[in-house]
Amino acid sequence: MNLYLIRHGKAEVKSESGRDFDRELTAKGKRKIESIALRLNDLGITFDKIYSSPLVRAKQTAEIFLHHMINECDFEINNTLAAGCNAKTLLENILFEHEKVALIGHEPDMSQILSDLCGAVNLQFKKGGIAKIVFEGEPRIGAGILEFLITPKIFK
Amino acid sequence: MNLYLIRHGKAEVKSESGRDFDRELTAKGKRKIESIALRLNDLGITFDKIYSSPLVRAKQTAEIFLHHMINECDFEINNTLAAGCNAKTLLENILFEHEKVALIGHEPDMSQILSDLCGAVNLQFKKGGIAKIVFEGEPRIGAGILEFLITPKIFK
Repeated sequence: MNLYLIRHGKAEVKSESGRDFDRELTAKGKRKIESIALRLNDLGITFDKIYSSPLVRAKQTAEIFLHHMINECDFEINNTLAAGCNAKTLLENILFEHEKVALIGHEPDMSQILSDLCGAVNLQFKKGGIAKIVFEGEPRIGAGILEFLITPKIFK
Repeated sequence: MNLYLIRHGKAEVKSESGRDFDRELTAKGKRKIESIALRLNDLGITFDKIYSSPLVRAKQTAEIFLHHMINECDFEINNTLAAGCNAKTLLENILFEHEKVALIGHEPDMSQILSDLCGAVNLQFKKGGIAKIVFEGEPRIGAGILEFLITPKIFK
């Protein structure tokens, strides 16, 4: 299966409520995610299922991808992906029943999850960044092969 | 410094001489590398120095990058980058005196070098693929941070 890790787009520094949970994407952050979603469509890169962190900035990122997705795509908010997620809890709490699954979450979690799934790599996961990891069968720690890691700049 | 690892483009299956060393890029391979070079220019991604493996398919890949490079760029063919290169011999035999250095070589060397420089990652380095690794100061084993890994498909 193909697993896509996506970091949410650029978010406001402080939400109206003052809670980190509620921070929304900025206008620029939304536009950037939109252009990434459109570019992925052009490239024929689609998802069958998107799991998003419940935090507003991640959910908004997921909604933009869903809005532009050309194929049928399931969507689920999964609390495991809230900030503080790791590969072990991810594999215990998320069902990988689809062929192309995208996970939308936060840093430093996304970097650590990629690292744990593919070996032990130091990396920079930029906002709106997207990584593709290929597995033979279900995802397992250390069994993933990194196919790409794209920074949003590449889609400019 | 920024280190870019590049795998040569698609090459003919057999050279006229019969030697693996002499295998040339196919017409499609040349076009793909050309489109990658132009796209990197658009994105402002340039090199100060390109080191290439002496094998014809790598040298031809380097020449296409050099031809399209918008800034001054040094070029050197370095035998260390011939097939069978690893991170240790690379660091011993190549001078990293420039800020943005590109190395053009082969598989499985490029994957293994990336892995050794950034941790221990399983990855697929496609033909024409390019990775950016960021170092504080000179490159050292395990000290690199992977910023991107792009497959040529992304530049379609």
